[in-house]
Amino acid sequence: METALQRAKELVGRMTLAEKCSQMRYNAPAIERLGVPAYNWWNEALHGVARAGAATVFPQAIGMAASFNAPLLHKVATAISDEARAKYNQYKRFGETKIYQGLTFWSPNINIFRDPRWGRGHETYGEDPYLTGRMGTAFVKGMQGDDPRYRKVDATLKHFAVHSGPEGLRHSFDARPTERDLRETYLWAFKYCVDHAKPAAVMGAYNRVNGEPACASQQLLQDILYGEWGFDGYVVSDCGAINDINAHHHVTETQAESSALAVRKGCALNCGSAYAALLAAVDAGLIDEETITHAVEKLFESRFKLGMFDEDCPYDSIPYDVVECDEHLSLSRRMAQESIVLLKNDGILPLKKEMNVAVIGPNADDHSVLLGNYNGTPSRDYTILRGIQDAAQGKVLYARGCHIFKDGVGDWEEHPLNEAIIAAQHSDVVVLCLGLNPSMEGEEEDAYNGDMSGDKSTLCLPKSQLKLFEALKELKTPIVLVNVTGSSVDLRPFVDDCRAVVQLFYPGAEGGNALADVLYGAVSPSGRLPITFYKGDEQLGEFTDYNMDGRTYRYMHEKPLYPFGYGLSYTNFAYENVTRTETEVRLTVRNTGSMDAWRSVLAFLRDGQEAGVNGRLAGFEKVFVPAGQAKEVRIELCPEVLALFREGADLELCLDTLD
Amino acid sequence: METALQRAKELVGRMTLAEKCSQMRYNAPAIERLGVPAYNWWNEALHGVARAGAATVFPQAIGMAASFNAPLLHKVATAISDEARAKYNQYKRFGETKIYQGLTFWSPNINIFRDPRWGRGHETYGEDPYLTGRMGTAFVKGMQGDDPRYRKVDATLKHFAVHSGPEGLRHSFDARPTERDLRETYLWAFKYCVDHAKPAAVMGAYNRVNGEPACASQQLLQDILYGEWGFDGYVVSDCGAINDINAHHHVTETQAESSALAVRKGCALNCGSAYAALLAAVDAGLIDEETITHAVEKLFESRFKLGMFDEDCPYDSIPYDVVECDEHLSLSRRMAQESIVLLKNDGILPLKKEMNVAVIGPNADDHSVLLGNYNGTPSRDYTILRGIQDAAQGKVLYARGCHIFKDGVGDWEEHPLNEAIIAAQHSDVVVLCLGLNPSMEGEEEDAYNGDMSGDKSTLCLPKSQLKLFEALKELKTPIVLVNVTGSSVDLRPFVDDCRAVVQLFYPGAEGGNALADVLYGAVSPSGRLPITFYKGDEQLGEFTDYNMDGRTYRYMHEKPLYPFGYGLSYTNFAYENVTRTETEVRLTVRNTGSMDAWRSVLAFLRDGQEAGVNGRLAGFEKVFVPAGQAKEVRIELCPEVLALFREGADLELCLDTLD
Repeated sequence: METALQRAKELVGRMTLAEKCSQMRYNAPAIERLGVPAYNWWNEALHGVARAGAATVFPQAIGMAASFNAPLLHKVATAISDEARAKYNQYKRFGETKIYQGLTFWSPNINIFRDPRWGRGHETYGEDPYLTGRMGTAFVKGMQGDDPRYRKVDATLKHFAVHSGPEGLRHSFDARPTERDLRETYLWAFKYCVDHAKPAAVMGAYNRVNGEPACASQQLLQDILYGEWGFDGYVVSDCGAINDINAHHHVTETQAESSALAVRKGCALNCGSAYAALLAAVDAGLIDEETITHAVEKLFESRFKLGMFDEDCPYDSIPYDVVECDEHLSLSRRMAQESIVLLKNDGILPLKKEMNVAVIGPNADDHSVLLGNYNGTPSRDYTILRGIQDAAQGKVLYARGCHIFKDGVGDWEEHPLNEAIIAAQHSDVVVLCLGLNPSMEGEEEDAYNGDMSGDKSTLCLPKSQLKLFEALKELKTPIVLVNVTGSSVDLRPFVDDCRAVVQLFYPGAEGGNALADVLYGAVSPSGRLPITFYKGDEQLGEFTDYNMDGRTYRYMHEKPLYPFGYGLSYTNFAYENVTRTETEVRLTVRNTGSMDAWRSVLAFLRDGQEAGVNGRLAGFEKVFVPAGQAKEVRIELCPEVLALFREGADLELCLDTLD
Repeated sequence: METALQRAKELVGRMTLAEKCSQMRYNAPAIERLGVPAYNWWNEALHGVARAGAATVFPQAIGMAASFNAPLLHKVATAISDEARAKYNQYKRFGETKIYQGLTFWSPNINIFRDPRWGRGHETYGEDPYLTGRMGTAFVKGMQGDDPRYRKVDATLKHFAVHSGPEGLRHSFDARPTERDLRETYLWAFKYCVDHAKPAAVMGAYNRVNGEPACASQQLLQDILYGEWGFDGYVVSDCGAINDINAHHHVTETQAESSALAVRKGCALNCGSAYAALLAAVDAGLIDEETITHAVEKLFESRFKLGMFDEDCPYDSIPYDVVECDEHLSLSRRMAQESIVLLKNDGILPLKKEMNVAVIGPNADDHSVLLGNYNGTPSRDYTILRGIQDAAQGKVLYARGCHIFKDGVGDWEEHPLNEAIIAAQHSDVVVLCLGLNPSMEGEEEDAYNGDMSGDKSTLCLPKSQLKLFEALKELKTPIVLVNVTGSSVDLRPFVDDCRAVVQLFYPGAEGGNALADVLYGAVSPSGRLPITFYKGDEQLGEFTDYNMDGRTYRYMHEKPLYPFGYGLSYTNFAYENVTRTETEVRLTVRNTGSMDAWRSVLAFLRDGQEAGVNGRLAGFEKVFVPAGQAKEVRIELCPEVLALFREGADLELCLDTLD
């Protein structure tokens, strides 16, 4: 049987140069004489099939990272690709698929969450390369499936590389990382995923790296991705990024030059319209037809692998019924449960069901915080308020309390503060839902705060929320803080006066139910922070500085408020018989408390002699341990992490967090 | 015991002129030496306590009018005033009440819905003066309570008078109705409510009437309201309306002149800040202190009647628990059920529960359409989709289908149409939820459509929705159209190709449940149109023309698509033994079908000799008739309506609609 590449070469061999060039744009037109339907390569599925109508909306990527449960993420990605195929199977019956209705997904985002102010950080798996690599691999494999002949959908690693804000500068920024940071931080998870998951595609970033536009970089694409790593897929540009090469990076002068440069460096597909100039670029001698032919062959190899030209692809029979099926909704709820991180608990949690609860705050009944960004549309969702209402047996009072960021109240506007006080006075406990929302931390165009585009200018929560808290803490009613964000914020003003603090990353459509499951003790929280919770702005360097020194748990100089890996449980665990070899850690995890619970065990390694590095996460596993029982756990130590240490170094093992 | 007015005179007698003037602004400051707390007179409760946090949100006024159930509206208003008092009892403990936290409510809006393009029409009880008068009276009495000494809350009739758009011109418009239209249409319900409900207050409109600003009108306030009608309450200006007198009507030159003029004509309270100039106006000799004193006495009479200075007001003990209590939520659901108007049904309704349903359209899962405007915040709501999901036993698929008004889809935007087709293809029936939303028909500042401010430029639904419908009607799946609007729109493009058409006025927080109750036959629909559903724009005159000729069922020249009073049932009724006297109609209403149902019986009178008038609604009653049973109904014919006919005219009785 011919390989997909052979079939692609045969097909592309019958195309004119103009036809070939046309297929290198994301909105590839039909070539009717060759039986090639129009196809739009742009599709999104960061945490569920996105922008294609109703779909199961799983927790935002940062929340799924907090689960530290790679097998569970693999199940999630399998569910997502099932829904993607089910949708495609219907959409293709219209003769062509429009944007967001195809099979080539521009997920996951495996950039390192270098700085907590980056608005798109919640799209990532956090600040650690190994965690990112593990989760990225689980996601890509779940998306792409395991059929020997066909790929279920294409997954795309993005944004390659050294991409983490500022959003406002992304079209012209030149990131100049040290060689060590480039390899240890910015490229590490990309290589891990290329090696372990064989992703179909990689997306080039907007920015330059060491002077070269990422989508047209000799170093990144030719030397490293295709050369060193032997990547065998295709590269797609970020949207409009080819035009940026001339318009904003000023590396070239025309779209023809930009396009020729990008294709020559290995970027086969253009999101945007710059490649409309490719034909002229060939005429002008800026690029030869053979290079174009090769690029188009890689693109059609992928379409053949996806079964787009075949009748026997097993994924064609996935029925529409799987979209938002009960199994997927349960999976979303479970992933949301496991994404919740308990940061403080003086024993007030779990709540007693018969308590009267005041659910207060601008995020208590907000639908947008369930969704994060790059999201689908749930046909049913559960806000925090709704989840608590459905779980509670006592009276539930709701009060918004304040605007999420607007301080002060206009003359003719509603005054929400006193209602919050009244609600608290009439309740046994306050569940206070503060934080941000996806319009406050997002992408370039999401900017609510002007010059900062989608980025945060500070880790402080808005003053409106601080004022609400100041008023509530004066009352006698105990406060459980639920901080709903996709990133680290400054929690210092709240922690001491709250009886419990829960971190809820944008939790998906089942978010309110999952939170209620945790608040009322149907499940024990088991999430761990995939990012450092800094004390505040004073622990951050310049946002534009890509030097990792002082950033993230690996390179911080000071103590944070809550470290990477932090997360409490309702039960107690003892680690027994911890042993370590070159390649693995083994231990017995004993649940010494009274509640069944999941437990992630994190294995960090530390070389006390290595300057500037506090240690590195080298392995983790998650295990379910019923109350009073024990489980044997084997944690594989990642060879690629071990390789980062000095040869022969005397490595210290730290479990769960670096001390 | 001293009367409230005596106590007011005594208190006001101790005020300085400056203090008195200060009390005539809506945000009246405290007078500490006299024990008078600050009080903000501005409060809203059009269909539930509004802008004061969580509250039971009942259907929008136009929907409550469609119930033709005045006793039920009285219950609703009683629930609203219970919640208002419960909230006030808490808010006042903070020492002062802020805007929307008091007891003086600027509801109901009893303007006549003269033209379907008026954006605020859904705040009204529709196009008929008698229906408006009956519903307004039920509302005011429910709000104000029946305590012999204390008034529960103040209700305010607005906007006095001849006020129904255009929103964009409201600050400068001069309405010049004929004397007949003034009396028969624009003032009729105001007089009816003043006579029958004794409202605490009347709000002057923004516009001029016959050249005089409504808030400072000799004719409207002095001659008619206080003079002819003997109104004994206070008049408040619409917000900013006093400043309009000089700034936009150019009737005066300064705020001092405007304020003096308004107070002299009888407008005691200023929403806005113009009355800050009152003190200067006295100095300038534009108004004397005695007139001011009298106005302030009327205001404090009201505050005394509300029990604000007493300890023994029975309403002070209404507990916070009543807010959104189960009884009120049930009442909201019932009112929403009764507000639903069935316009067409070929027998497909009620739906079988086991059917697979595609719930499609931009209003299917929209929260804002539940609320209308001047609304509170439900702590739990049910969109159409949610209501159907909770009631259905078959599979429910959701697809938005199109943007509510934006035609076309941007290059990088989601394409929602094909999903709707897929959903329809996978279902037994489509529930198609089209219409408008409160940002598309609203107040001056709600304008989504530029120059039209909150008004509609056309009765046509947006092209985006027509395209969705065109695509769906080609399929085999039967369509039930749910038109969600607060006003009449052009339904002609839809009716023939839909198996059923349901009119859902903005239905409140329980709207989705109530609609599902009707769709699945838990209750039979019993609403009737409180407005004419015109065929389309060609049946409308100039929007700015306040002549009623050709407008509404009373004066139309042509046949509409659905007449005022129209509304189908799931059961059949026979009217037997209809008899009529000078003062009443009696009949037997027999339910000859197989389903218990409510039935409104409307009694119109027509004088075949009267030029230009098709007839007038003169009475209505609503009755519950179990299947197979009959009920005797007595409909009182309103003397004030009868008085509009020629003496000795030979009046014909028409039941339910004018033929």
